[in-house]
Amino acid sequence: MVVIHKPFVEAAKMDEVILCRLMPEEDLFANLKKIAGDHGIKRGVILSAIGSLKNVVFVNVRPHIGIPVKTEDMVEIEDAGPFELLTLEGNFFPSQEDGEPVIHLHAILGTSSGSVSGGHLLKATVFTTAEIIIGSIAGSSVYKAMSDVTRRMELLKK
Amino acid sequence: MVVIHKPFVEAAKMDEVILCRLMPEEDLFANLKKIAGDHGIKRGVILSAIGSLKNVVFVNVRPHIGIPVKTEDMVEIEDAGPFELLTLEGNFFPSQEDGEPVIHLHAILGTSSGSVSGGHLLKATVFTTAEIIIGSIAGSSVYKAMSDVTRRMELLKK
Amino acid sequence: MVVIHKPFVEAAKMDEVILCRLMPEEDLFANLKKIAGDHGIKRGVILSAIGSLKNVVFVNVRPHIGIPVKTEDMVEIEDAGPFELLTLEGNFFPSQEDGEPVIHLHAILGTSSGSVSGGHLLKATVFTTAEIIIGSIAGSSVYKAMSDVTRRMELLKK
Repeated sequence: MVVIHKPFVEAAKMDEVILCRLMPEEDLFANLKKIAGDHGIKRGVILSAIGSLKNVVFVNVRPHIGIPVKTEDMVEIEDAGPFELLTLEGNFFPSQEDGEPVIHLHAILGTSSGSVSGGHLLKATVFTTAEIIIGSIAGSSVYKAMSDVTRRMELLKK
Repeated sequence: MVVIHKPFVEAAKMDEVILCRLMPEEDLFANLKKIAGDHGIKRGVILSAIGSLKNVVFVNVRPHIGIPVKTEDMVEIEDAGPFELLTLEGNFFPSQEDGEPVIHLHAILGTSSGSVSGGHLLKATVFTTAEIIIGSIAGSSVYKAMSDVTRRMELLKK
Repeated sequence: MVVIHKPFVEAAKMDEVILCRLMPEEDLFANLKKIAGDHGIKRGVILSAIGSLKNVVFVNVRPHIGIPVKTEDMVEIEDAGPFELLTLEGNFFPSQEDGEPVIHLHAILGTSSGSVSGGHLLKATVFTTAEIIIGSIAGSSVYKAMSDVTRRMELLKK
């Protein structure tokens, strides 16, 4: 179901700060989803994440495209790495359809040349460790719904 | 007015967590300023921001320069993009002169090659969406004043 | 002492938000350690940091390596800069051995070409300013202990 998206501003509170340590070979998305479920965190924001990742897949958009973004406007990049995880920015909010957490992450990765790569993250495995600090959000009625503009699940306020 | 700047450490509290969704064609700085004004957020820190930007202007400093930083020490880069917004780091505090929010942002942007660019952000327009989470800060007497060293508005404690 | 590391999830609270301004020529790690000590912040997460750095040393891992990470798997990069500090991601927790704060930081730096570099930060000096916002964490029993896998001090829950 595609929903008309509108801008919004909502004042909520940070409830808990969730400290997570992931281990080698763990899947980043599956573990974040499990942590959210096990600990009843409906809405969260990544406050900080460091460690290292491998077998990473991410996408970026091509220059000079417009909206709506089409499949051919995006470039998927796959790299075995491993890489230092330099930033992990993102959030999770419940899907409007089934209430399951929709995790949206952008990552930046360090390479041995000192240069840096990254994008909208689709898949990643922990290499040595991941120290992830999540702020859980209380008092919010924001959820995620499919956008006809971005073709991704985007934030929407009921 | 140029002020002598001093180091400081101040313990404050995070009051609210402000969830914002910006829409295509919206100006990033103008909207953050409007959100701060409309919702009475005097002091804030960007906790997280993802989405995509276009028509971006940012600056970086040249290597081997000293302080004070001169205009010719900075390189301005303009790029129509669009880009995935991979990180947005920054804060806003009231100007010492007129109390208006001074917004200082650093952004990192993903490109279709997988490489990443960024710097001190001067201008940006939302491409598809921007999901910005701001922590509002209570119990602070920090403001922004022009620094003779950086030639930018910098943090200062009264 | 090398400790067997395990994954964990711990719910804690954000206590205070510490606003710090560092000045030109100050050492980043020494100052963060001093701030943590002077203000009794046992556990903290970097929520945001902007400004500029110089005389930076950081490391990244080589591609196609496995664990445990060996010294020759890491590439150390030293650059006088200066650079815009685009992100500083990391945390500090007390060492299991002596209770001293172990500061783990990843930084991303802007260059005058608009490209970006970064990695696991070992050393940095403030160029013009550093505006660092730390969230202090209460209700946590997490500390840092040497990992036999990463050969770094990693998060561990008692």
